[in-house]
Amino acid sequence: MAPLFLLTSRSPRVASREWGHMKDLEELKQVVAEFARERNWDQFHSPKNLAMALSVEAAELLEQFQWLSEAESMAPPSDRRQAVADEIADVLVYLVRLADRLNIDIGEAVARKMLINAEKYPADKVRGSSRKYTEY
Amino acid sequence: MAPLFLLTSRSPRVASREWGHMKDLEELKQVVAEFARERNWDQFHSPKNLAMALSVEAAELLEQFQWLSEAESMAPPSDRRQAVADEIADVLVYLVRLADRLNIDIGEAVARKMLINAEKYPADKVRGSSRKYTEY
Amino acid sequence: MAPLFLLTSRSPRVASREWGHMKDLEELKQVVAEFARERNWDQFHSPKNLAMALSVEAAELLEQFQWLSEAESMAPPSDRRQAVADEIADVLVYLVRLADRLNIDIGEAVARKMLINAEKYPADKVRGSSRKYTEY
Amino acid sequence: MAPLFLLTSRSPRVASREWGHMKDLEELKQVVAEFARERNWDQFHSPKNLAMALSVEAAELLEQFQWLSEAESMAPPSDRRQAVADEIADVLVYLVRLADRLNIDIGEAVARKMLINAEKYPADKVRGSSRKYTEY
Repeated sequence: MAPLFLLTSRSPRVASREWGHMKDLEELKQVVAEFARERNWDQFHSPKNLAMALSVEAAELLEQFQWLSEAESMAPPSDRRQAVADEIADVLVYLVRLADRLNIDIGEAVARKMLINAEKYPADKVRGSSRKYTEY
Repeated sequence: MAPLFLLTSRSPRVASREWGHMKDLEELKQVVAEFARERNWDQFHSPKNLAMALSVEAAELLEQFQWLSEAESMAPPSDRRQAVADEIADVLVYLVRLADRLNIDIGEAVARKMLINAEKYPADKVRGSSRKYTEY
Repeated sequence: MAPLFLLTSRSPRVASREWGHMKDLEELKQVVAEFARERNWDQFHSPKNLAMALSVEAAELLEQFQWLSEAESMAPPSDRRQAVADEIADVLVYLVRLADRLNIDIGEAVARKMLINAEKYPADKVRGSSRKYTEY
Repeated sequence: MAPLFLLTSRSPRVASREWGHMKDLEELKQVVAEFARERNWDQFHSPKNLAMALSVEAAELLEQFQWLSEAESMAPPSDRRQAVADEIADVLVYLVRLADRLNIDIGEAVARKMLINAEKYPADKVRGSSRKYTEY
């Protein structure tokens, strides 16, 4: 878990942009938990508060697109794109933290939900009609 | 990528709850993209629309906690806990999908943001004072 | 304040759609406060909880438009339009309630903010360029 | 409609804090519509975009309370209280604007919804049990 070291060391690598990659949700959970523990932030991280923080971050992400047309939102300029990436990261951090505080296995939760979605929207029936999006 | 097969086969495993685990963000990205492609849903998945959908799901997650005290939110009853897990999954699916549509590497984005956070809130200065949460 | 009577009397007028009109924010504040008091709901109406509830309702409003194009959103079918009207009302009720709980005069707050907006976006400079919306 | 003049005149009254009061939703609707028209902003104000902007403002309001306890949220310090008032105003402006763009009479909508609420939560049954808030 090298990232833990990086995270606690005022790393000059932030500036030099040599940061790593954290595609594993289990590892991310541990890094975020360690981050909060080191700062004594567990006291603020009730699921209620985390759900609020997550909702605020989701809105900051939404704000990046609010006056754009759909077409414009497909190809944002590079500074806007970086801002979007940062907000996506903020949402993910709170999401992983919230799941952790409730002992919810986020990897299992998403696998389960995707299977439910597959049952609910069978590809052979949904394709073409796309009723989910046009039923209104 | 076994899950892809499961997702497209009206699997009885949803009912039998033998679903797998999807802790890898790269794999999840591919499963979600395949899911959308099979249903011809890419046309609805502009970043603007996905950011809206994500915000709506974040609010559905928030709704689970809205009249609870912070203490109550730490230990929700089991049906509420399952609802929370499902909403967490919904947020994650849209988050991964949004990143994918903008070619944002979500694992890199979150690693970068955690390093920035570590710079911004050095553990040795923040601990105890917790200024971030009490400065108002 | 006829509405108060209507509100507490399981009025058949809901069905017959002869309801009145409540364009006065001061009157609405009083009706909503009376409504909460009669149900002993003040205990749940902390500003924190009300801001959460308001955010949830705002997302339910957003949900009505989430897969529509901008053009489609200009002319929703009548049932969708009624759902939008109901969600707008929900947001307004929580907004007025939140202001009331903090003794914020909502009429003064909005007059003040509109004047600030007028200073910030002078019509003669903003018109045409619409920088606010295109600066990204 | 004196406020209209004030709003278009870079009024020094913003600084001197002699602004008026706008408790009438009909008047507010007209002031906000005039404000947008003078700046040629109608083109950005599709219901879809306005619902997004409203959701973003609701989250900015939520942000003011996110790390506070419920008790703390009852008595915010004065600068926080002013920030809350400004965010409440922002939400109200977009709410009134959205209703206007869809020709929804907001005063009628809220009167109707309050009557529906009164039917749904009869005071004599709800009082004490407060089932709405504790049924989870």
